[in-house]
Amino acid sequence: MEAMVNNIRVEKAATSKIHDVDFDNLAFGSTYTDHMLVSDFVNGEWKEPKIVPYGPISLEPSAKIFHYGQSIFEGMKAYKDVEGGVWLFRPMENCKRLNKSAERLTIPELPESYFMDGLMALLQLEKDWVPKNPGSSLYIRPFMFASGSGFHASPADEYKFIIALAPSGAYFSGKVKVLIEEKYSRAANGGVGYAKAGGNYAGQFYPTQLAAEKGYQQVIWTDDNNHEFIEEAGAMNVFVRINDTLITAPTSDRILDGITRKSILDIAEDENIATEVRKISVHEVVEAAKNGTLKEMFGAGTAAVVSPIAGFGYKGMDYDLPVLAESYAEKLKKRITDIQYNRAEDKFGWRHQVV
Amino acid sequence: MEAMVNNIRVEKAATSKIHDVDFDNLAFGSTYTDHMLVSDFVNGEWKEPKIVPYGPISLEPSAKIFHYGQSIFEGMKAYKDVEGGVWLFRPMENCKRLNKSAERLTIPELPESYFMDGLMALLQLEKDWVPKNPGSSLYIRPFMFASGSGFHASPADEYKFIIALAPSGAYFSGKVKVLIEEKYSRAANGGVGYAKAGGNYAGQFYPTQLAAEKGYQQVIWTDDNNHEFIEEAGAMNVFVRINDTLITAPTSDRILDGITRKSILDIAEDENIATEVRKISVHEVVEAAKNGTLKEMFGAGTAAVVSPIAGFGYKGMDYDLPVLAESYAEKLKKRITDIQYNRAEDKFGWRHQVV
Ligand SMILES: Cc1ncc(COP(=O)(O)O)c(C=O)c1O
Ligand SMILES: Cc1ncc(COP(=O)(O)O)c(C=O)c1O
Repeated sequence: MEAMVNNIRVEKAATSKIHDVDFDNLAFGSTYTDHMLVSDFVNGEWKEPKIVPYGPISLEPSAKIFHYGQSIFEGMKAYKDVEGGVWLFRPMENCKRLNKSAERLTIPELPESYFMDGLMALLQLEKDWVPKNPGSSLYIRPFMFASGSGFHASPADEYKFIIALAPSGAYFSGKVKVLIEEKYSRAANGGVGYAKAGGNYAGQFYPTQLAAEKGYQQVIWTDDNNHEFIEEAGAMNVFVRINDTLITAPTSDRILDGITRKSILDIAEDENIATEVRKISVHEVVEAAKNGTLKEMFGAGTAAVVSPIAGFGYKGMDYDLPVLAESYAEKLKKRITDIQYNRAEDKFGWRHQVV
Repeated sequence: MEAMVNNIRVEKAATSKIHDVDFDNLAFGSTYTDHMLVSDFVNGEWKEPKIVPYGPISLEPSAKIFHYGQSIFEGMKAYKDVEGGVWLFRPMENCKRLNKSAERLTIPELPESYFMDGLMALLQLEKDWVPKNPGSSLYIRPFMFASGSGFHASPADEYKFIIALAPSGAYFSGKVKVLIEEKYSRAANGGVGYAKAGGNYAGQFYPTQLAAEKGYQQVIWTDDNNHEFIEEAGAMNVFVRINDTLITAPTSDRILDGITRKSILDIAEDENIATEVRKISVHEVVEAAKNGTLKEMFGAGTAAVVSPIAGFGYKGMDYDLPVLAESYAEKLKKRITDIQYNRAEDKFGWRHQVV
């Protein structure tokens, strides 16, 4: 069956899996919808994307993705409102960041219209897959990787761009305990930390596993020179509240320019919360924890939205954070999710309607 | 057709492609043999490897290799002597390094016997693919990657280990010009630079491309703190000869522990060449180039063996290296390749006979 949705060719799946899915008990990113968007870069250009049934990809063993880690991705969500309307949150930011990552990984840039038109068509087709339950959403995973062949360590000549969809529940449940990293690091100066490159994530698994063995769910990444400044929280940006000021590290070539992070900065300003974008030393955080001025810490990212931190470990000591009646984390999470789910005015113009 | 070679199950290819191959004009790593070795990690264990026809791999779009860069590899060669004997060079070193990389990338360790027995059986089956021409060899690519599914950023539960073979000519032809890097870097302190992780290589492509646009074939990587010390040459270890002393950087968590590098150190000692394993500052190299004490620089690695450097660029200046009648690079390359191709005594016990 071939059809067109929004100018995108669609090869429809013979049957739908949607009735097999328990939408009341969704894990994160482990159930996939019926279709995906695919575009191939061959002979020097990206071909028009098309929608095909979600299914296996076949690659030569010599495809460079297996050898040289030439891969990037994005993470977005589609949100359903009470009337059944479906919304995206600042999707052009993801589109632009994908191409920024592409440049650093020597992957050819994708035309923005292929990303946006393809995504819209895919979501229109799959709109029934966007869950309605509070806190759940349709997780969107655009990704690109080297499908071209060869054992020579150089960029591939062929690539694949895919968008796959996964109806998902919450990423974390509850507050997390974190470990401030003193030995390992996720990014080098002059490296690829600011890009959403696959390799950045694999490198985090081992230190995160060591932290988990000690009872911490996440690692707070520090600079790789002296582990002196805190930079990110797992795969999220990090915020620290000292007294009533909300502080986050400046973006750099080691830190991802998170969309949640910059939205939170805007919302905080709108809420008359004092914000500072500056380096945050571990010393400062530990001292503030000791003298009681450290009120909150949280991670911010698309998957977990705002992830409050219950306490942190550093140099063998544990520091608990207070439980507040009125936390910034809760207030900011409410405001951002109210915008995302079309429950409140969108004064920043961030929402993008799908259907 | 099922058979056994060396206790490894073999599913033979219906036909061979060997007669289509022009063994006199082999590129590097772009022609593949008839068979590959495959083992799967499922249900918590590596299954016995088997040999199957070389052909496509089918993976879910949600396989973690596409998203989180969980992949590692090795590079080895099989060499043919004049009598048709086939040899490996220190293969256990690759086997051990693969598992060292695996640990850092949170990939389950492979039993050494699966690696060695599988490799030997595969090479015995494919021995006619080992080229005879001078300078050519059968390039061996063991690799491992996350085949398990999920958009959650955490280690996969399934992996694949594959060995593929590619009859290959020389990696570089002639001397290369290199650029000492002042901005980009390949590895972080506490990162994965010492592992053969796929992501390390993709991260090198862009800076290497920028260098190529300026007329340099390779980048000399420097530390990411201050770009003060030289660390590697492209995907090779780096050697510098000042006066008659051969110097190489110490291995660290940023530098790969190269098998060629350590073999060259042993051979140099045997040749009564003074060696030093210590940090090499860019300043020292530039000064030595200026005052004429810098005699040679070369890269060392399995693919290119020894890759002499003709000159380097730094801060907009070009420095040429002298052309010597008796270079260490040439002498050491001859000694190591004489051992590899069974043309000389193997006093270190490095050769390993396949057939
Ligand atoms: C390393 C890292 N930092 C921060 C973020 C948060 O970015 P965003 O808010 O755009 O999702 C992400 C991904 O989501 C990430 O992978
Ligand atoms: C980054 C890097 N450095 C050095 C080397 C040299 O190692 P070996 O001599 O074991 O091939 C390699 C690979 O071959 C490498 O990828």
